Amino acid sequence: MNYRSLSYTLGRILKICSLLFLPPVAVALIYREPPVSVLAFLSTGILTFVIGVLLMGKKPERLRFSMREGLVLTFSLWGLLSLLGALPFMITGDIPHLVDAVFETASGLTTTGSTILDNIENMRQSCLFWRSFTHLIGGMGVLVLVFAIMPTGSSESMPIMKAEVPGHEFGKLVARMKNNSLILYGMYLGMTAVLVIFLLLGGMPLFDSLVTAFGTAGTGGFGIKSASIAYYQSPYIDMVISIFMILFGINFAVYYFFLIRQPKKALFFEELRWFLAIIGAAFLAITLIVKPLYDSWGETLRHVFFTVSSSITTTGYVIVDYGSWPIVTHVILLLIMSIGSCAGSTGGGFKISRFAILIKNMAAEIKKTRDPRRMVAVSLDHKNIEHQERHVLRYLGIYIACFMGFVLILSFDVGDLETAISGVVATMNNIGPALGSLGPIEHFGGLSDLSKVTLSFAMIGGRLELLPMLVFFSPRTWRRLA
Amino acid sequence: MNYRSLSYTLGRILKICSLLFLPPVAVALIYREPPVSVLAFLSTGILTFVIGVLLMGKKPERLRFSMREGLVLTFSLWGLLSLLGALPFMITGDIPHLVDAVFETASGLTTTGSTILDNIENMRQSCLFWRSFTHLIGGMGVLVLVFAIMPTGSSESMPIMKAEVPGHEFGKLVARMKNNSLILYGMYLGMTAVLVIFLLLGGMPLFDSLVTAFGTAGTGGFGIKSASIAYYQSPYIDMVISIFMILFGINFAVYYFFLIRQPKKALFFEELRWFLAIIGAAFLAITLIVKPLYDSWGETLRHVFFTVSSSITTTGYVIVDYGSWPIVTHVILLLIMSIGSCAGSTGGGFKISRFAILIKNMAAEIKKTRDPRRMVAVSLDHKNIEHQERHVLRYLGIYIACFMGFVLILSFDVGDLETAISGVVATMNNIGPALGSLGPIEHFGGLSDLSKVTLSFAMIGGRLELLPMLVFFSPRTWRRLA
Repeated sequence: MNYRSLSYTLGRILKICSLLFLPPVAVALIYREPPVSVLAFLSTGILTFVIGVLLMGKKPERLRFSMREGLVLTFSLWGLLSLLGALPFMITGDIPHLVDAVFETASGLTTTGSTILDNIENMRQSCLFWRSFTHLIGGMGVLVLVFAIMPTGSSESMPIMKAEVPGHEFGKLVARMKNNSLILYGMYLGMTAVLVIFLLLGGMPLFDSLVTAFGTAGTGGFGIKSASIAYYQSPYIDMVISIFMILFGINFAVYYFFLIRQPKKALFFEELRWFLAIIGAAFLAITLIVKPLYDSWGETLRHVFFTVSSSITTTGYVIVDYGSWPIVTHVILLLIMSIGSCAGSTGGGFKISRFAILIKNMAAEIKKTRDPRRMVAVSLDHKNIEHQERHVLRYLGIYIACFMGFVLILSFDVGDLETAISGVVATMNNIGPALGSLGPIEHFGGLSDLSKVTLSFAMIGGRLELLPMLVFFSPRTWRRLA
Repeated sequence: MNYRSLSYTLGRILKICSLLFLPPVAVALIYREPPVSVLAFLSTGILTFVIGVLLMGKKPERLRFSMREGLVLTFSLWGLLSLLGALPFMITGDIPHLVDAVFETASGLTTTGSTILDNIENMRQSCLFWRSFTHLIGGMGVLVLVFAIMPTGSSESMPIMKAEVPGHEFGKLVARMKNNSLILYGMYLGMTAVLVIFLLLGGMPLFDSLVTAFGTAGTGGFGIKSASIAYYQSPYIDMVISIFMILFGINFAVYYFFLIRQPKKALFFEELRWFLAIIGAAFLAITLIVKPLYDSWGETLRHVFFTVSSSITTTGYVIVDYGSWPIVTHVILLLIMSIGSCAGSTGGGFKISRFAILIKNMAAEIKKTRDPRRMVAVSLDHKNIEHQERHVLRYLGIYIACFMGFVLILSFDVGDLETAISGVVATMNNIGPALGSLGPIEHFGGLSDLSKVTLSFAMIGGRLELLPMLVFFSPRTWRRLA
């Protein structure tokens, strides 16, 4: 481990991150909140800046940055931001307890959307804004943002960003250079802005439109109403959000190809077709199953479409209590939640491309078992993926191992296995609300501190796809290299 | 698919299997049961023989047997035996309903040990004997038995046995020739006989000793008392069964090495050390957790040792209601149930060797991620296992896919997700009784026919490690080859 390079780069990034505390200051001023609100965000921003300066120290003569440092940096940054981002909640008194505040911030940054609050409406505007703003920050990734801003050589950004952008595929496209992360972030903010406009057109107040757009863009799911999107009672808003959740669940490479005028490449992106096919299949199946519960087709289609879209993108917005739907729909929803969205999107889960690779290779395995002498080629987007299968399967193994580890810790102090399992599923996949039938944890406030800390790690670990966390916690990582 | 070779070999095997119905005939005669008992088993035996003769037909000029035929044959044989073995239950009226009888037989053959009966004590002796006898038959494998008896060239037995012996490793040792399956079956029956003697020495009646030994040897778990082994109230019997469950959960290659006087090779078998280490760790952890619930150390150790041994070998015998233990012990038990016993043993689950390969490769993955340029060798028993990892991981993928498929079907007609998930876990891993906290399915009698049929497939599919089932149900398998 090269401590100097790590600390210098981390400090530099934190300095930039201190700017993130300015927008909530503006909100506090606009809504004429008591001075403590302004103070809370301003002092946290300053503290972040100071920590950044201290960590930077003197510039090392030569920055030595490898994968190891990249992984540790990413995990440390997300951990630090979860701690620092929790301070305003504590200073304002809206979430006085440290563990609760960190859980809420980690849930926001990782776009999980699980909450420990039982009455969201009681929170002040600036904190509500900050809570949703963390979705926007974490959705595309803190580092993607930083590298879009920071003047830097690409030598250090490459291994770092690889660790943060979800999926194994997109890294290649993104990490090539600074320009790309600028383009990426531009598309991301542009789409969010378009969504805000659509929501305003539907009669949603500006503040609500902004925070709802943040939650949709990051596929996070924090809202400012206990009833989530159902509060607005507007089929138009439901449809807009349904569509945008899916749009943010698509690999941003698709939009990139549109941008560089290669629409053919975009539309023939195999992951996109898998994603849409899975949405279509789930939509069709659930519609047929729940139709008898509704009076009109319109209501059925709207409710099912919204729920499928919110589930597969792991957003977690709700317009209908699907807990009352038949059990088989819960299994379908759990399945698509676990599969998740495309790589290189803001959505969570196992990722469509990994899923497609697994399915294709399993089909090949069956073929090969049947005819051992037959050659079976496995490809995605005309590229051979047999090499990638190994990584995907290993990820699956690591995923299951971490899952069991978290459940084991949690089972020490929750009352039943259901709560332990559904809590870990919901947080590690960055889903947010757990399925009603899997233990109706309407909010996580009732858990013990140990459980909340464990689940905070599950959220950050899951968001960064586990390896950064495992490398961070493996003792040999911290050996000083000669 | 070469239909003639398949049907001829299947017929030949069925002819031998017809002999399996003779022991229960003897039991019926000894216990002077009404003639219907003798008739039931005798007529089923004759029917099996006749079907065998019909399937054989004229000997084809040349037997063409590849992996494809082997997999289909194995799955067909297990399916047919589950159907035929159900007949005596129906004829005697002890289990009148077809689906129930098939479920019970499949559960016996696959050594799952799940039952649809709510009052075992009501069954006649011959049926009780047959029920447990299926554990003995299925434990080491029907085909291993057949090839130990049948005069055959090894050309056809090789691909067939590979599909039946659990684990991916043992096939090499076993399938080499007829001699090996004779040795294997000899060791298996010999150990069962030793167990019977030990049980008799503990004062257990002969009949009880036989069926209990069958259930232990096959790691099945069917008993003849509703209270399972707790009925006998004997610490000696508890200890004997605990130890023998573990012995039958060890890779039989270990005993083979002892037999050919290479004890060093046996003791340094890495899978064995993993197996014992996992048992030790689980034993220690659970003992520390549940000690406060007991008055004496002796009782604690006995109960925990029996439960750990019964769980990891997926036997399912019970001497204590571990449902009342703290939740964290359930997670540990679920974990070791899922890991299961050694490859090449009679136990179920994912298998120790696969688990070891996964863990070792995950550790290597973390090392490689940290230092991409470093060479990391992964080996088990001094053999490089990086090649095997691919198969293991693929198996994991297939396992998860099948698991989800079964849960999806089951969730159509059970009331809650818990029942669906715990039912599939218990049957697909050939565990038997589901964990209390995962939905206390004390017996499976209350499920619908669709669920029972689905779980019967889960048991057979799980026992044969899924690929034979998938190949059987993939339409292209059935194409006639030129």
